[in-house]
Amino acid sequence: VRKGTNLPAVGSFNQTVVLDAIRRSRDGISRIELTEATGLASQTVSNVCRRLIEDGWVSEVGKRIEGPGKPRVMLELSPRGAFAVGVHLDPAIISFVVTDLSGRVVASVRKRTPTRPDPEAVIQEIVESVDELLSAPGIVRSKVLGIGIASPGPVDPRRGIVLDPPLLEGWRDVPLRDALAEATGLPVVLEKDVTSAVVAELWLRTTELPDNFAFFYFGSGIAIGLALAGEAYRGDSGNAGDGGTLYVPTAGLADGRAADMIGYLATPGYIVAEAAAQGLRDPLPSPHDPAAVEEAFDALLRRADEGDAAVRGILDRAADYIGVAVTSVVNLLDVSEIFVGGPYWQKVAWRFQPRIAALVNSSRDRVTHHPVRFREATVGDDTAAVGGACLVFDAVLSPRPSSLLIAP
Amino acid sequence: VRKGTNLPAVGSFNQTVVLDAIRRSRDGISRIELTEATGLASQTVSNVCRRLIEDGWVSEVGKRIEGPGKPRVMLELSPRGAFAVGVHLDPAIISFVVTDLSGRVVASVRKRTPTRPDPEAVIQEIVESVDELLSAPGIVRSKVLGIGIASPGPVDPRRGIVLDPPLLEGWRDVPLRDALAEATGLPVVLEKDVTSAVVAELWLRTTELPDNFAFFYFGSGIAIGLALAGEAYRGDSGNAGDGGTLYVPTAGLADGRAADMIGYLATPGYIVAEAAAQGLRDPLPSPHDPAAVEEAFDALLRRADEGDAAVRGILDRAADYIGVAVTSVVNLLDVSEIFVGGPYWQKVAWRFQPRIAALVNSSRDRVTHHPVRFREATVGDDTAAVGGACLVFDAVLSPRPSSLLIAP
Repeated sequence: VRKGTNLPAVGSFNQTVVLDAIRRSRDGISRIELTEATGLASQTVSNVCRRLIEDGWVSEVGKRIEGPGKPRVMLELSPRGAFAVGVHLDPAIISFVVTDLSGRVVASVRKRTPTRPDPEAVIQEIVESVDELLSAPGIVRSKVLGIGIASPGPVDPRRGIVLDPPLLEGWRDVPLRDALAEATGLPVVLEKDVTSAVVAELWLRTTELPDNFAFFYFGSGIAIGLALAGEAYRGDSGNAGDGGTLYVPTAGLADGRAADMIGYLATPGYIVAEAAAQGLRDPLPSPHDPAAVEEAFDALLRRADEGDAAVRGILDRAADYIGVAVTSVVNLLDVSEIFVGGPYWQKVAWRFQPRIAALVNSSRDRVTHHPVRFREATVGDDTAAVGGACLVFDAVLSPRPSSLLIAP
Repeated sequence: VRKGTNLPAVGSFNQTVVLDAIRRSRDGISRIELTEATGLASQTVSNVCRRLIEDGWVSEVGKRIEGPGKPRVMLELSPRGAFAVGVHLDPAIISFVVTDLSGRVVASVRKRTPTRPDPEAVIQEIVESVDELLSAPGIVRSKVLGIGIASPGPVDPRRGIVLDPPLLEGWRDVPLRDALAEATGLPVVLEKDVTSAVVAELWLRTTELPDNFAFFYFGSGIAIGLALAGEAYRGDSGNAGDGGTLYVPTAGLADGRAADMIGYLATPGYIVAEAAAQGLRDPLPSPHDPAAVEEAFDALLRRADEGDAAVRGILDRAADYIGVAVTSVVNLLDVSEIFVGGPYWQKVAWRFQPRIAALVNSSRDRVTHHPVRFREATVGDDTAAVGGACLVFDAVLSPRPSSLLIAP
């Protein structure tokens, strides 16, 4: 049975609506404009603004004269009204950022993930790095709302546990959220990496976003995150976005099979292995070492830039595999915007994006009639870490119609 | 910018919440129980109930004594308070139903779709059949809320147009909704067939449903509909649910390819063609004639029942292809319940369902940790037609948090 709604729920929802409208205004916004933008009564807008100013989230920034009548007092977000820490736990690198309320990164640091990670040691490392970051000048510790961790899946966000990500060797049922919360005294939220990337797009957008979009995440593994009906879509257990097990047909693999999963066929690790299988380079001594894969992948990209046709062919085929998988997702979910990003994306963006876009838009398999637009992620390499910080803001500050329902 | 909410929106939302709670109560529900179930104030529940009784949607059905205190007046849905017409436009059959507010079918008729459909003639046929149905005894025409049409995709639900479904020969940009509305004087809503099936599950459920589920729809074509966050998911243009272009690997097709799309590999038409390719039957003279395909498919199922191992092998492989595609969807969307239904499903349910469920739940490719449960659709063969009627009820009567937002 659906719950009803009542006045306290409405009040708190409207407060997030007003804050959101102020946050998204580029040059400040007056109370009258807020009334028009939100559809709320002017008295409601007034009351909410007074509370937001008292809490330090919003400030009055002078007056603007528009035609006759009193000049309007303009309101703006106070970016330094709150901070959040984002941590991206990646097989290769752990990235840390502190962002202010506007999403701007005010401090950051990157540490190489130990090749054979001992979860306890990694937790200790994270605690120390967070502590170090929060001592940076300009950060007021009492205004830090919390820590958001973006982790490879599968995870259990409800219990704050990293389950058993295939790319994080030695991790199994690690209660990362509670361990960090205890060590830092801050609230901690844990989500899958690609979900964090989606939340970052939703939180940081400066232009209108479509209600639904997919996020193609190109990292050590491949993921396809989703925003549906204007909110990050998490699925039943918080693990939505695993696009890596979509099959695509191939022209024939070395082992004789003619189809495989995109999460295998288009990853940097596979591309390096395929180049070795074709005799274009030596096989990696440890093909699962993320640092070795990244170095070898970078070397292949340089060769492609220099005109190596065989290496280009491997990269083009990987882009085509991605295009086929994205077409399946477009048909299933009827989305017309795809964001592209993730730790490895910047390396391949100019090469992959036009090819993927052309394939999807000219595909005879595409059922929907509207063109599909591809957009670079708002944040570059650090998309998941910034997303981690956005998880914190989003949890506290985003207007959600579902929050209107009376709690069970 | 998100819109805020206000009291009129809250009032109308709460009315649908109360009606929904009454509708879903099996043995009637008292006002006190409604207060508990919805979290609304008792005065609000009282006012809403009075309006619902006046409008004929709800009736008082005696009193129940529970412990000390006054006996409680019980409220029940008045099933005959409203009716809706559902039309399922299928390549083979056009099904018509009238259901009452409880979703019970009170009248129905099926007509064979002309093999070379002339859209004008089909519209005329639909108008006459609806008229005939609404003259059935027990149906009060003034209480018919509207007509819901379930059509193969792609469609344009916003403009009420059937675009160019591959299985509906000769149909292109047919404004079916407005034509029917004009001819019948009733409001008409048009949606994709699988979306109607999802709406039927949401509307007719008698048990708790998960927030997210997929609906595997087995008809002349294959579709995978979605309910996400408790509502039917339609996508940007109303065409979500095309699961037919998911690729699956095969053990090798007759033409030498080793992977193809599930919408080809597991349909009744392909199964019949594959049997012919293996010399198990003659090829169909017109392989796209839906009636011929159905007859041939039924004959193959009888042979499988009689123990024909080769035919069984073809059917088993089709079920396995479906299992692989469903696994991809489970990973992408993190759903743990899959409804199965559609016009051809009843024919294969006992054979396909256990096999698909076993494959998905034992798949090493499945990333999520929770088991995936398969459930028969609530409605059998007529799932899309009943879904059409539910589209009408759902549009008018379902509580939607998004409807709380002030209209732009």
